[in-house]
Amino acid sequence: MPNRPKTPLLDQVTTPADLKRLSDAELARLAAELRAETVSAVAVTGGHLGAGLGVVELTVALHAVFAAPRDKIIWDVGHQSYPHKILTGRRDRIRTLRQKDGLSGFTKRSESPYDPFGAAHSSTSISAALGFAVARDLGGVTPEGLGDAIAVIGDGALSAGMAYEAMNNAGDLNKRLIIILNDNEMSIAPPVGAMSSYLSRLYTEAPLQELKAAAKGAVSLLPEPFQIGARRAKEMLKGMTIGGTLFEELGISYVGPIDGHDMEQLLAVLRTVKARATGPILIHTLTRKGKGYGPAETARDRGHATAKFDVLTGEQKKAPSNAPSYTSVFGKTLAGLAAQDDKICAVTAAMPDGTGLNLFAERFPSRCFDVGIAEQHGVTFSAALAAGGMKPFCAMYSTFLQRGYDQVVHDVAIQRLPVRFAIDRAGLVGADGATHAGSFDIAFLANLPDFVVMAAADEAELMHMVATAAAYDAGPIAFRYPRGEGAGIDLPERGEVLEIGKGRIVAQGKRVAILSFGTRLAEVQKAAEALAAKGVKPTIADARFAKPLDRDLILDLARDHEALITIEEGAVGGFGSHVAQLLAEAGVFDAGLKYRSMVLPDEFIDQASPDDMYKMAGMNAEQIEARVLDVLGVASLGERRA
Amino acid sequence: MPNRPKTPLLDQVTTPADLKRLSDAELARLAAELRAETVSAVAVTGGHLGAGLGVVELTVALHAVFAAPRDKIIWDVGHQSYPHKILTGRRDRIRTLRQKDGLSGFTKRSESPYDPFGAAHSSTSISAALGFAVARDLGGVTPEGLGDAIAVIGDGALSAGMAYEAMNNAGDLNKRLIIILNDNEMSIAPPVGAMSSYLSRLYTEAPLQELKAAAKGAVSLLPEPFQIGARRAKEMLKGMTIGGTLFEELGISYVGPIDGHDMEQLLAVLRTVKARATGPILIHTLTRKGKGYGPAETARDRGHATAKFDVLTGEQKKAPSNAPSYTSVFGKTLAGLAAQDDKICAVTAAMPDGTGLNLFAERFPSRCFDVGIAEQHGVTFSAALAAGGMKPFCAMYSTFLQRGYDQVVHDVAIQRLPVRFAIDRAGLVGADGATHAGSFDIAFLANLPDFVVMAAADEAELMHMVATAAAYDAGPIAFRYPRGEGAGIDLPERGEVLEIGKGRIVAQGKRVAILSFGTRLAEVQKAAEALAAKGVKPTIADARFAKPLDRDLILDLARDHEALITIEEGAVGGFGSHVAQLLAEAGVFDAGLKYRSMVLPDEFIDQASPDDMYKMAGMNAEQIEARVLDVLGVASLGERRA
Repeated sequence: MPNRPKTPLLDQVTTPADLKRLSDAELARLAAELRAETVSAVAVTGGHLGAGLGVVELTVALHAVFAAPRDKIIWDVGHQSYPHKILTGRRDRIRTLRQKDGLSGFTKRSESPYDPFGAAHSSTSISAALGFAVARDLGGVTPEGLGDAIAVIGDGALSAGMAYEAMNNAGDLNKRLIIILNDNEMSIAPPVGAMSSYLSRLYTEAPLQELKAAAKGAVSLLPEPFQIGARRAKEMLKGMTIGGTLFEELGISYVGPIDGHDMEQLLAVLRTVKARATGPILIHTLTRKGKGYGPAETARDRGHATAKFDVLTGEQKKAPSNAPSYTSVFGKTLAGLAAQDDKICAVTAAMPDGTGLNLFAERFPSRCFDVGIAEQHGVTFSAALAAGGMKPFCAMYSTFLQRGYDQVVHDVAIQRLPVRFAIDRAGLVGADGATHAGSFDIAFLANLPDFVVMAAADEAELMHMVATAAAYDAGPIAFRYPRGEGAGIDLPERGEVLEIGKGRIVAQGKRVAILSFGTRLAEVQKAAEALAAKGVKPTIADARFAKPLDRDLILDLARDHEALITIEEGAVGGFGSHVAQLLAEAGVFDAGLKYRSMVLPDEFIDQASPDDMYKMAGMNAEQIEARVLDVLGVASLGERRA
Repeated sequence: MPNRPKTPLLDQVTTPADLKRLSDAELARLAAELRAETVSAVAVTGGHLGAGLGVVELTVALHAVFAAPRDKIIWDVGHQSYPHKILTGRRDRIRTLRQKDGLSGFTKRSESPYDPFGAAHSSTSISAALGFAVARDLGGVTPEGLGDAIAVIGDGALSAGMAYEAMNNAGDLNKRLIIILNDNEMSIAPPVGAMSSYLSRLYTEAPLQELKAAAKGAVSLLPEPFQIGARRAKEMLKGMTIGGTLFEELGISYVGPIDGHDMEQLLAVLRTVKARATGPILIHTLTRKGKGYGPAETARDRGHATAKFDVLTGEQKKAPSNAPSYTSVFGKTLAGLAAQDDKICAVTAAMPDGTGLNLFAERFPSRCFDVGIAEQHGVTFSAALAAGGMKPFCAMYSTFLQRGYDQVVHDVAIQRLPVRFAIDRAGLVGADGATHAGSFDIAFLANLPDFVVMAAADEAELMHMVATAAAYDAGPIAFRYPRGEGAGIDLPERGEVLEIGKGRIVAQGKRVAILSFGTRLAEVQKAAEALAAKGVKPTIADARFAKPLDRDLILDLARDHEALITIEEGAVGGFGSHVAQLLAEAGVFDAGLKYRSMVLPDEFIDQASPDDMYKMAGMNAEQIEARVLDVLGVASLGERRA
């Protein structure tokens, strides 16, 4: 293989058990090799680079001290687990990360017994580790045995209420449980000064006195990045004090901070904890995202997520884009509207870049709120902004909005408050796989009374829907759009305000009508072109609204066609189900209608390109075409195969 | 009116503005009258008594010092708001609490401008208050103006992650915001000793020096209940330290604790805070649930929720029950199974009594976990228990499971972990109204791949489903059942394990088939009796499963009948939608089928008796009968009216 780093020690490791044979010095060298191998692999696949580089030493130390898979190491989010995968029997497939049929970009139970609890969404690891610890003490069994439970969680992830709930419960149950706080520079980092005095107070406490030496050593060994200015120190003070007092108050012993890149410290602390811990204990490690790879260390985002790149230069190899992304169209459109309307404000849950709100935040910093990884709060906060006369846009990925569902129902819908939900990453999302799919939002929103639910068919439609949401004050309104580039069509100067509950006919045909909700419209149009060659000319309509439905449009389509097919980038229970309910209530089925509803299949689809994923879902142009022919009883498969 | 207390001062109060004319001594007397009026009202209506009695003085003080509705007083949960309702123009309707067409048992925006943000689910108030505070500072407008934002939250509610997320955000934004921590004896209460030393540290801080006197006074004035023994003090230590340090660490000034029943202290502190607060501040008040009403103070639950009662004796006037509640059938059945299987364990989110797990907890305390108001954590904790080889039953109300939806998807469904969800309060729930309705769980669970979703038609079926869930290890499984009494049928010795995905024919008829999912079955049977008199004999089937559907049963019913009607206690998108999808895919609609799906209507239904609520929903026997006649084209309405 060209350009592979030399990894003599790593080459001897096939399972973590092999680490037990290495000296501490060799483990430190192994970490260096593991770092090089990680860089080399991600250069080929793209993916989350910085997070993994930050935990290379921790990964080696954990596997050297503990005995996975009997001991359960649970990586929060899991995007930092590439080095872990390399050490746990998956090195041979590491260059398939995030590819179709390859390794997941996160931890995954079905992939390896060394991934005892998969992840991808943030802040679940402490709950999971506590569950294993309790199961162990109750006599639960797993094929690999059941030993220590170890959660590795970032400081950012600790901002979520769920992590707090788990710590609250862990402190109460007082089971042996190990939490590694991986505190890196990218989010809240601890101030050295306050931490020092803090540590000295912690050291006076009895239960884990043996840790004193190791932890005290850590202070003098703090790496350079933590020698920081006063302003930064003040900024960090808050994070720091959370990092200490809060844990102790919740009944969790606290150790740290230690240098997470110093193998000697890591091994000493982990060995001591392993030998001594009785109840829950948190080890506070300081790490640097992107550590050890220059281009990542110097990047603004510390190499958080990257395309394929050149290892020597760090230069990323991105395909040129043909069209702006939906995300950026949303961000620009909203910022444009906000310039005209000072009541427009925006809320994101730790995703200013991912949602395109960075554009908005730059221009209107006082009206943009990043609430942290806190969807529950973010939704209710938005509801109260609306109650206070503002026009909040609550921008979240479909999959993360699931975290705020009760708040959507209880605080927004029941109160009919005009919160505007901008739902990004609707439908299948590609390399992030099943955990990030936005499959359920149509179903879980469209059955809420008085909710308006839209989906954009293309980026111009998205502009219209942003404008529509801004203008709509009668209640909650949501619009969804996918990850990735738009269709590349010409964009209007500004979005138009759409009539609520009205769809549009895109092409008039006969016999069969295809009613699309969302961006499958382009595939429907492609299918129609192919069908034309076979003498079938479908009517194509863009529903725009799953709620309220365009009753007249739908009944007209049903009346004027032999068959009606709906299609949406969502699971059953959503748009098609509402259409079916309407048709049933109107008695349309009584006399017969070839009705079909194309929805995401009843399975979680693993990562691949979005196009491949939609193929697996049976929702690409060819499959739509086949469906139409099948419904109409036209010889289809034979013809297509011929 | 007989037995009404004498309330000369209260009689002069029609709006909170009237309180401004009263002296501090008169306000204290007003509180006594308000307490008597609250007891008198709840004696007539039943409802949440203890919580309101605990905040009588606080209610008076808040309205005396602040200027609602311009100032936004937000009662967390809202079940303690009866005294607030009495003071804010709703005294004339206070004896309609929780009745049909009466006042809500919670706060509600549509009920009064003095309820700026409604509630019913816990822990939303800080998010809401922060939203108002931010809106105010951004120039937001409401018809009543926009002044101070005040959240009143209990210590129990503060255990939810959402409250932590809100405080984290509030400390960061640093807007003027007032949080009243209503810390009562019923849950975590503060230890006097540690609190004292804690206060002395807080007093050394500068910004609110004027509070010293008032707060220091509070210590010596602590009411008797807070003079507690050592064991209790230790137990409370954890809660206390949360109560102090945590707030300061999150950037929220802390004042307290003060005696929440001492009008003088309350007024002094509130006036000072009103005059001085710049950023977020938390006032820690100590109160006693049920305060001032003997029977409540001495009750085990401090009069948390009560039926109608005799004011003098406190004796509750409960209607005799004809059958055990579904909740108790669940609890007993699970405890019985757990006696045979030591892997069975149970998780509740602060609802051991409400879910019937108290029975389980008594017999198997080490296997029952109350995680606090923490559904997110509770679900993921359950998932890990399952991964660790246990058989966890995660028992939650349908409406509260919404709080853990992402965890259901991400941690349970995607990983196919055999968590057993016992979903209580499915469907409409009566006096708790729209906020507590369990309307959406069928829809939001049944579209998750590999999920098994059941609903019990009666209490014997519930026993079968508990047994089925215990025996099922292949993945997630849920069973739902309503609030209230069962049908009163004979119960088997033990539940039988049902075949997954198989329904049952209850009565064979012709022309029309009614396929029921859940406890509407009894109404369907009543409707069938009435229909028999009209010569129509429907086939009746109990689906048992919304997922997997009983494909054979459904296609047989469709084939053998002119009409097929589904009915479920849930919103569109659920069982009926899955049946419609199956029928569409099977081509059944092509040739025509009179298909109808009876679901909850597209509106939030206010409180009433469950029977009345289902009547409003159009789902009682008479309405089912009418529906059948209508679908079959039999003259119906005329006949029924004749």
